Amino acid sequence: MALHFTSEQRLDGGVLEREFTLGEVPGILWTPPSASAPAPLILLGHPPLGLDRMYPRLVARARHAAADGFAAATIELPGSGDRPRWAALEQARADLRRAGEAGEPVSDEIIDALILPLVDEAVPEWQAALDALLSLPEIGGPVGYSGGVISIGVRLAVAEPRVKAAVLFAGSFVPRAMFEEARQVTIPLHVLLQWDDEGNDRQAALNLFDAFASTEKSLHAHTGGHTGVPQFAGDAAAQFFTRHLT
Amino acid sequence: MALHFTSEQRLDGGVLEREFTLGEVPGILWTPPSASAPAPLILLGHPPLGLDRMYPRLVARARHAAADGFAAATIELPGSGDRPRWAALEQARADLRRAGEAGEPVSDEIIDALILPLVDEAVPEWQAALDALLSLPEIGGPVGYSGGVISIGVRLAVAEPRVKAAVLFAGSFVPRAMFEEARQVTIPLHVLLQWDDEGNDRQAALNLFDAFASTEKSLHAHTGGHTGVPQFAGDAAAQFFTRHLT
Repeated sequence: MALHFTSEQRLDGGVLEREFTLGEVPGILWTPPSASAPAPLILLGHPPLGLDRMYPRLVARARHAAADGFAAATIELPGSGDRPRWAALEQARADLRRAGEAGEPVSDEIIDALILPLVDEAVPEWQAALDALLSLPEIGGPVGYSGGVISIGVRLAVAEPRVKAAVLFAGSFVPRAMFEEARQVTIPLHVLLQWDDEGNDRQAALNLFDAFASTEKSLHAHTGGHTGVPQFAGDAAAQFFTRHLT
Repeated sequence: MALHFTSEQRLDGGVLEREFTLGEVPGILWTPPSASAPAPLILLGHPPLGLDRMYPRLVARARHAAADGFAAATIELPGSGDRPRWAALEQARADLRRAGEAGEPVSDEIIDALILPLVDEAVPEWQAALDALLSLPEIGGPVGYSGGVISIGVRLAVAEPRVKAAVLFAGSFVPRAMFEEARQVTIPLHVLLQWDDEGNDRQAALNLFDAFASTEKSLHAHTGGHTGVPQFAGDAAAQFFTRHLT
């Protein structure tokens, strides 16, 4: 499957931003102003809230990546943004809301229903995007994955050998089955955790970090809530990619 | 009390290393090659194993600090190195060894006996060293504290207003009383934890991190044992000091 570029603009500073579709899946590619050699690529993960809503944060991350010489790309998640609603996912979200409103703990069943189908569906799409992106002359390897739904990052780290390093954001529910997959992860990991993220299970995040089999793994926990990742944490994550992908 | 310099040498790269005594306490001061303005100061903490034994790691940290424009200084801990043996401390260490050999858990009583007198004795000495060091024309503020026995760092962060930021190494036993003191710490903290440090209680380290009241605190946990802090972790700690002390 090939990318079809649907729009193109130069951002201030010279980064080239191109929207594309890959079959039914929309996405965005950012490439650095002047790339003499094919640029290494960072896949920008994001929560399932729609690319339009996530755009300001995504473009900021892409600019940071481009300044370090990386191309960056992202695709819409299934059931999000302009993609068709997904009844099972909507149901799981409704169950999650109901549990929250009733003050009940979020059950393993809800977490499984919320995350596992999303991982099963999204990961092959990210892999197809990789196939298409890496066939462009301006993009080379190696590839890093950054942020978004942590279980998608874990699955990609296990299943996709072209992903050589990952920055994971421990800020979403983790199905029990993912702890087993985590034990199979061996690439270098840089894991971000917001210490005061009220919607997140801190102990589960620590357990997941413990489970990774990577020889190089670092946990970077910072004060603040879910969206309060400090600027300097972004810089440290960028240094991690520079260390492993260039 | 004034510093008496007892030796002086220029290291490769131009860092000036001077040994000193402050009363009965020996210490070492490193200053950057060319300091036009008074340099900010980093106090280099270390475990109670004696300055001679710790020298290779201390001088490496001091060179790193000097490259970033910092002066660095350290003093011998009570009961260590060439300082007089301290019977109560020797006893606590013997009790610790015995518990280890018997495969018993280390009791709170042993931890208290091992750490609390050391903190009570050492902290006023570090403060006296600060008085003397800050009176030198080549040294200015602000001051950071880095590494060593974490309880000494915690006490200094609470008791010494000239210490504006601290890199703490969560690698030593923490007496129960220190968790209360931790709640009074408000300066920016960068806490290092070796995830696989067998001699360290990981949960206690996480609890201590949780207790700090600092608005900016970060936990940086890395794979590896007690002495396996990776090079890039040192770089990140240096960036933390540059952010807060310059």
